[in-house]
Amino acid sequence: MPGRFRVTLRDIAEQVGGEIYGNPDTYITGVAGLTNIREGDIIFIESEKLLNLALKSPAAAVIAPKHTRALRSADAPKPALLAENPRLTFAKVVETFAVQRPAAAGVHPTAVVGEDVTLGRNVTIGAYAYIGRGCRLGDNVIVHPHAFIGDNVTIGDDSLIFPFACIHHEVVIGKRVIVHSGAVIGSDGFGYVQDAATRRHHKIPQIGTVILEDDVEVGANTTIDRATLDATIIGEGTKIDNLVQIGHNCRIGKHCIIVAQVGLCGSTVLEDYVMLMGQVGVQGHITVGEGVWVGGRGVVLSDVPAGAKVSGFPAIPHAENMRVLAASRKLPDLLRTVRHLSKQVEELTRSVEMLQQPKPESQA
Amino acid sequence: MPGRFRVTLRDIAEQVGGEIYGNPDTYITGVAGLTNIREGDIIFIESEKLLNLALKSPAAAVIAPKHTRALRSADAPKPALLAENPRLTFAKVVETFAVQRPAAAGVHPTAVVGEDVTLGRNVTIGAYAYIGRGCRLGDNVIVHPHAFIGDNVTIGDDSLIFPFACIHHEVVIGKRVIVHSGAVIGSDGFGYVQDAATRRHHKIPQIGTVILEDDVEVGANTTIDRATLDATIIGEGTKIDNLVQIGHNCRIGKHCIIVAQVGLCGSTVLEDYVMLMGQVGVQGHITVGEGVWVGGRGVVLSDVPAGAKVSGFPAIPHAENMRVLAASRKLPDLLRTVRHLSKQVEELTRSVEMLQQPKPESQA
Amino acid sequence: MPGRFRVTLRDIAEQVGGEIYGNPDTYITGVAGLTNIREGDIIFIESEKLLNLALKSPAAAVIAPKHTRALRSADAPKPALLAENPRLTFAKVVETFAVQRPAAAGVHPTAVVGEDVTLGRNVTIGAYAYIGRGCRLGDNVIVHPHAFIGDNVTIGDDSLIFPFACIHHEVVIGKRVIVHSGAVIGSDGFGYVQDAATRRHHKIPQIGTVILEDDVEVGANTTIDRATLDATIIGEGTKIDNLVQIGHNCRIGKHCIIVAQVGLCGSTVLEDYVMLMGQVGVQGHITVGEGVWVGGRGVVLSDVPAGAKVSGFPAIPHAENMRVLAASRKLPDLLRTVRHLSKQVEELTRSVEMLQQPKPESQA
Repeated sequence: MPGRFRVTLRDIAEQVGGEIYGNPDTYITGVAGLTNIREGDIIFIESEKLLNLALKSPAAAVIAPKHTRALRSADAPKPALLAENPRLTFAKVVETFAVQRPAAAGVHPTAVVGEDVTLGRNVTIGAYAYIGRGCRLGDNVIVHPHAFIGDNVTIGDDSLIFPFACIHHEVVIGKRVIVHSGAVIGSDGFGYVQDAATRRHHKIPQIGTVILEDDVEVGANTTIDRATLDATIIGEGTKIDNLVQIGHNCRIGKHCIIVAQVGLCGSTVLEDYVMLMGQVGVQGHITVGEGVWVGGRGVVLSDVPAGAKVSGFPAIPHAENMRVLAASRKLPDLLRTVRHLSKQVEELTRSVEMLQQPKPESQA
Repeated sequence: MPGRFRVTLRDIAEQVGGEIYGNPDTYITGVAGLTNIREGDIIFIESEKLLNLALKSPAAAVIAPKHTRALRSADAPKPALLAENPRLTFAKVVETFAVQRPAAAGVHPTAVVGEDVTLGRNVTIGAYAYIGRGCRLGDNVIVHPHAFIGDNVTIGDDSLIFPFACIHHEVVIGKRVIVHSGAVIGSDGFGYVQDAATRRHHKIPQIGTVILEDDVEVGANTTIDRATLDATIIGEGTKIDNLVQIGHNCRIGKHCIIVAQVGLCGSTVLEDYVMLMGQVGVQGHITVGEGVWVGGRGVVLSDVPAGAKVSGFPAIPHAENMRVLAASRKLPDLLRTVRHLSKQVEELTRSVEMLQQPKPESQA
Repeated sequence: MPGRFRVTLRDIAEQVGGEIYGNPDTYITGVAGLTNIREGDIIFIESEKLLNLALKSPAAAVIAPKHTRALRSADAPKPALLAENPRLTFAKVVETFAVQRPAAAGVHPTAVVGEDVTLGRNVTIGAYAYIGRGCRLGDNVIVHPHAFIGDNVTIGDDSLIFPFACIHHEVVIGKRVIVHSGAVIGSDGFGYVQDAATRRHHKIPQIGTVILEDDVEVGANTTIDRATLDATIIGEGTKIDNLVQIGHNCRIGKHCIIVAQVGLCGSTVLEDYVMLMGQVGVQGHITVGEGVWVGGRGVVLSDVPAGAKVSGFPAIPHAENMRVLAASRKLPDLLRTVRHLSKQVEELTRSVEMLQQPKPESQA
């Protein structure tokens, strides 16, 4: 963790907004979650249920929801910053404590920069970074040591490329994009055609590219394949976690969330605001509608209408899937019950057949 | 995408085969799928159903199945190249439009090449590539910038090693092999033995190696562990997608297809022509027979006979698994039905018992 | 594989322990599993069932369980080394045959070493390795070529950092830790807060770190995210396989085993000796108790008590899950049975209603 700074609650409110209650000159020296709180930390709660925990902690101040009555008074038990969205406000506070973006350091003498490369203002290129021919890097771009940028790549202003990130030739990257370590952008799509005569798999060259729009973030060791012919597209503001696979020709909408180890087959379309939780799989050549949520480990095999909340294999409405999972656990009992029922029905049938036979004594 | 060339339909037919109908001097300036077609593009269809779409498009020419009658005439509505396997023919056309294999560029001055390294003709070794002691590289091998090749590695003719590919010591790579960025070949197998006394995990050294036979392709960020004692083997012509894990001592046959995020435990055997779809898992120490297909997300827990088509957890015949999945969705209803049946049977039993009792009035 | 040495069975027993039977001067020139055994190899068996296989093999000697009577005699059919834990003894033998730890080679002239870096004795730093400012490396640390170590990282004695391993700033690594190629330690956790007004995802800066305690091993292309505020912790002796994702703020206990492609959400707690088999997923903010075993592909959605053996989605006791899976396969038949039962019950009901009606003839 970075060294501890010392600012006042007022300084913080000026930067991130919110209403101060209690002493605005309270010193804040760090940030913490609800564990490992040290004296001087500022913390946050999203619900009044956690208020007691917060008040008993050694924290110097607490960020809380606007309506928290217990804190909205002159003699509040702890200095507070009240906000509409305490988590968002806290995130902004953490930013002020985070390691600051380093000053631009120019091009390291060991970096290899190809011909016809255009660099914006305040660009940093680290040790052993490789920039191919014809690349265009915007202002304030930071290419960390040991990043690889192939030929004719475009990177917009303020983007960050981490060590061992691999951006292949022709890829187009927007502004404020973050590509984490080990991510591979623009590797060949997985396309073959089997020759019926020889049964060998013939590679289909992948001559398209990848476009990462503004404000995209790509996690560590994630792979995004280039399109066969045009472009695999990741829409503006979409955030992708670690170890995700995005197949060739996918078109991901804006402001999607894709959690770790998700896999998208080729030519999948995600509309805007889709959320795929961890380890989800999505079939190729289908469309997942705007705002769809897919539960962890779900497998989407066909189009999903906008706004749906689905899970399971194959993905069905989440509430229904929960009922199916709950019911599954009762299956062994159910089998026993049905075996028992079958016997009972058999016996009943025999009994009824007996009853249906004309009774000899009534004939007498 | 690369710049647009200009060739004629005849030039293309000469390179990739097929019968021309319509004007052989038609200029072709690009390739496209069935979307984003530009004037001058050549496209392909696999079925006559798409013929209308193709004819209405601005494409300059269309590759279509041999038997497409509407195109087999002098006054066909669009110039055509008819072929046995239109997809394969198209793949070959794309190749002619793909970025050409660059001319050999020799060894970059920043590359580190160890002692006793043997290089074939026309070898390219990029910036900051590392080649360990005793390596042997065949003709036309391209080691991209920032690739790592450990000691005593052998790489056959015409192979491509991409940036950040990591080939560990002693690995043997055949001809025309492609190793994509971030792939790790020859990392230690995951082998430990727990010491009963201390409960600590003692590492079993992994002193075997990995063999990639001719025409293998390994996807980005895929990992293939070295064998404990002998060799993990990937058979000729097998294609492996991104983020796949191949455990130590696996033996993969020839011409297999392994889609993204598949995981194979240690000592798994895949015979030839096996296809594992995305996110499949295969138990260790089992054999998956020749030509087996495993559906996406399936988990194979025991031997699978040659030719089988399986899916599910555990993998069972695919058609049966489809029936099980369809039935699963009916489980909550089934539970209700059975509860209802149980009550009905209970009531029936009571009624029948009543009926079985000697009736007092009949005795009268 | 390394070249073949030549030692005697006595040399081996002196190094790894065990009782020799048969000629102690038997030459051993290699090690093998139960396949590909060459003359001169030493092999091991864990069960007497494999004794015949071992005796018929060309192996020069066999490591076997202490109680193996057939080998405990002067005229035993093959020289033997008897041990309490033959697998552990064999692992130690393999070690003696493994490529030895290379002699310290100092700092390669192409390595970039930042200011204020402290190096212990016998440190090796390979070609193009990058060591940030303020790092402290203990004795005998080996940083392989093309490894990246960010600013202010601490690495304990005898640790190994492989090519393309990426250790981000501030990370703390203990003694005898192994970080394999492509592993990313200390990438940003996946934390955002959605701004209700703009619907954009606002990044929560991740200013914590990662701690790998002594004897941890991290597999190839595995990712371990840094904590939001304090530290993601991997406990002493825990072994992590390839392509695993550990989310931010996780706390993993000591001596755990985490097999390939497992994913842990953020803030998950694993107590000591937990075993997660391949492709398992664990929900965030839950605790998996000491010694828990989770079967391959299982998904843990809630706390698991110490010692439990669980599997399935959601994970339930393993024996119960096996029963549920077996029952699932009978579902299509069950549906048919229940449909048939429903008809039978309907008919029975009708028959019983008929029987319950006063019989006209009895009235006669």
